[in-house]
Amino acid sequence: METVNPPTGGPGLLTDRYELTMLASFIADGSAGRKAVFEAFARRLPEGRRYGIAAGLGRLVELVEGFRFDASEIAWLRREGVVDAATADYLATFRFRGTIEAIPEGDLYFPGTPVLTVSGTLGECIVLETLVLSVLNHDSAIASTAARMVTAAGGRPEDGGRAVIEMGSRRTHEEAAVATARAAYLAGFASTSNLAAGYRHGIPTVGTAAHAFTLAHDSELAAFANQVEAHGTGTTLLVDTYDIPTGIRNAVTAAAAHGATGPGAIRIDSGDLAEEAAKARALLDDLGATSTRITVTSDLDEYVITALQDAPIDGYGAGTRVATGSGHPTAGMVYKLVAIEQEDGTMRPVAKKARDKASVGGRKRVYRSTRDGILAAEVHVVAGPPPDGFAPAQVTVVDHGTVVHRPALVETRQACASALASLPAEARSVTDGVAWLTPVVLTPATQGA
Amino acid sequence: METVNPPTGGPGLLTDRYELTMLASFIADGSAGRKAVFEAFARRLPEGRRYGIAAGLGRLVELVEGFRFDASEIAWLRREGVVDAATADYLATFRFRGTIEAIPEGDLYFPGTPVLTVSGTLGECIVLETLVLSVLNHDSAIASTAARMVTAAGGRPEDGGRAVIEMGSRRTHEEAAVATARAAYLAGFASTSNLAAGYRHGIPTVGTAAHAFTLAHDSELAAFANQVEAHGTGTTLLVDTYDIPTGIRNAVTAAAAHGATGPGAIRIDSGDLAEEAAKARALLDDLGATSTRITVTSDLDEYVITALQDAPIDGYGAGTRVATGSGHPTAGMVYKLVAIEQEDGTMRPVAKKARDKASVGGRKRVYRSTRDGILAAEVHVVAGPPPDGFAPAQVTVVDHGTVVHRPALVETRQACASALASLPAEARSVTDGVAWLTPVVLTPATQGA
Repeated sequence: METVNPPTGGPGLLTDRYELTMLASFIADGSAGRKAVFEAFARRLPEGRRYGIAAGLGRLVELVEGFRFDASEIAWLRREGVVDAATADYLATFRFRGTIEAIPEGDLYFPGTPVLTVSGTLGECIVLETLVLSVLNHDSAIASTAARMVTAAGGRPEDGGRAVIEMGSRRTHEEAAVATARAAYLAGFASTSNLAAGYRHGIPTVGTAAHAFTLAHDSELAAFANQVEAHGTGTTLLVDTYDIPTGIRNAVTAAAAHGATGPGAIRIDSGDLAEEAAKARALLDDLGATSTRITVTSDLDEYVITALQDAPIDGYGAGTRVATGSGHPTAGMVYKLVAIEQEDGTMRPVAKKARDKASVGGRKRVYRSTRDGILAAEVHVVAGPPPDGFAPAQVTVVDHGTVVHRPALVETRQACASALASLPAEARSVTDGVAWLTPVVLTPATQGA
Repeated sequence: METVNPPTGGPGLLTDRYELTMLASFIADGSAGRKAVFEAFARRLPEGRRYGIAAGLGRLVELVEGFRFDASEIAWLRREGVVDAATADYLATFRFRGTIEAIPEGDLYFPGTPVLTVSGTLGECIVLETLVLSVLNHDSAIASTAARMVTAAGGRPEDGGRAVIEMGSRRTHEEAAVATARAAYLAGFASTSNLAAGYRHGIPTVGTAAHAFTLAHDSELAAFANQVEAHGTGTTLLVDTYDIPTGIRNAVTAAAAHGATGPGAIRIDSGDLAEEAAKARALLDDLGATSTRITVTSDLDEYVITALQDAPIDGYGAGTRVATGSGHPTAGMVYKLVAIEQEDGTMRPVAKKARDKASVGGRKRVYRSTRDGILAAEVHVVAGPPPDGFAPAQVTVVDHGTVVHRPALVETRQACASALASLPAEARSVTDGVAWLTPVVLTPATQGA
């Protein structure tokens, strides 16, 4: 039997063992209840990237709410010697009662930006580390990539751009696929092929047929006739199984049998897409199918989409490259202790000194300023008020264990579009660049306090 | 409220919409019950790779067994217009009753190798496509990468190599993390940091402490004393939070307080690892801690591990690079219809002609030959018997809906080690190369039949 224990519903074990080992040590020496602050941030953006899009918060909040350990899991942890009896008791009644503040989902982040700040007891903060990072690193990598593809397509469809459809499910883990669809949608994709993403998150789903559909029929025309019969003339016909011009003629013929000048759209999934799209447009127009749209797919990314901007294309399907972060499949965020309660009740800033991984101690509040609607600066303030003209960039998401921020995905999607619009065109460029903004850390020393 | 519908237990919706759209068309024209054969294969290996390791089969089999659509999901599919009434009825009672043959998990694959062959009705084969590819593409990408890291470490610990620990959970989606740990373990990793992987799959888990643990204490020595107190002198102490030589001295002091010459191991997570390991070994020996092992972590991959082979290191922790496939996060397999039943009951071979994505029609049986224990050739036979001296490479996994092949993960892990041992050293090299073996397709024409 392959599975030893079936997965439980709870996310508690989606955790690195050392979180629980550390918890056991803290419980043993009485420090698990000390107050602590942790920050999740990326030391740097992926090579060539100019900004990051924070994503995953909505999923994370639900996972934190459900973060429990059931009896079977605790028995296993005991049997394996991961935790002692005292730690097992702690986990049996565990609920996160701390506070989470974060950059809202869909908003920008830069090197060092505290994307998520967790404050609570040392014990409850430490056990969340792995889950926080798994969710933020995956979803932010996808959203950051998707935002570049949407930019290359001229923005969201509602902003005048061409639709980009997420269809990468088969290129990534089956559950990562659902999160990928969600992250791409919030970054401005029009829709997804993934049904679970539609069911769970209300994301529009699309999809018509694969090459297998045509191959399963005795002829391409028979396949198209069947598809139009079953799904109406508004359907999208995949025309490149055999020969594209013949495919287009068959598509128009199949639609014509139902009184339409052409199908809703054709899809081309191979060849030189710019050239094939131009030839397809000319042929469709020639055949009178002037309102038939052209969708292209096949290893599209932000660079290919940019190169296709002058081709007569109405929509793009992005698969592998969006699901794998277009070369950067993880956001590289880390989760670091920045302050710990002292014996006297005050908070002590802490920081790692390791030469290539140094961090700044103290809890950092994030503020941003804009000039003429364009993001101008970001500061991280360790103590005291922000400089004049700066507004807080984090929101309170969980307040002492209660979720207080749970926007609908459409709101998050709008927030992302607004955030991208707050960048100058240069910062949105998909060409290689450096972080458009370097946040400044204001410590009591640099503030002259 | 962020979630529209909570995830259901079943994997049915982890599927691209077009699978169900095609199913609806097939049901409408009466062809859903025609017999069909689909093959999952990679057209090519990722750039530079010499072999692939097939992985995910064990997970996939359980997902196929549970592939159902519950009432809530079907109601949603109807509401969204994804399926019509007849298709909804079909899905309500869906169970996969077809046959799956596959390259056993942990075994090798090359360009074009039918890694998985599904035969059954057109309807039941088509709805599995997305799930088959999600699982195989993710898990095979990880296992193929992990096998290279294990090779760089000199093989599995039981084969004389240095232990490689999987610790990439925080760099990938939280569920992909569990599958990553599983794929890495079957490819020869010694253990994982991921607790769910231990709980669900019985994989050994390890983990001790992060930098936060040291930072949370008033001094490094206090942290180490606490850890040794809670976990014994066999624990691994992370010595690079502040200054490595001081950290090592503190580690030995903390162990000495409990009568040991040193802790079980120290971990170094920053700096020039070869240099730091050499200095650490010299210092440990100097302090009498000659049996304290040295583990290193920090962006390790097959190249860094190779470069560290002469350093006095006892174990490696690999994170980001194994969880993201070391530059190749997906295996790029596709799932193609290769044969379909005709009106007269015979099977017609089918193939796509698109110029850059052409495929060979007909169901291909996979056979391999060895010479002196080394894999010598692979043929794909469309019809007739294999050439002399060739043995079948696929096994029957599901026989008309019944799972008949469910090896324990330890067996799969042994199979992978044996498969790697069947490659010549040159083919196992982690340097860039081309597929070590190019399978030959034997069609009735090429067989002279």
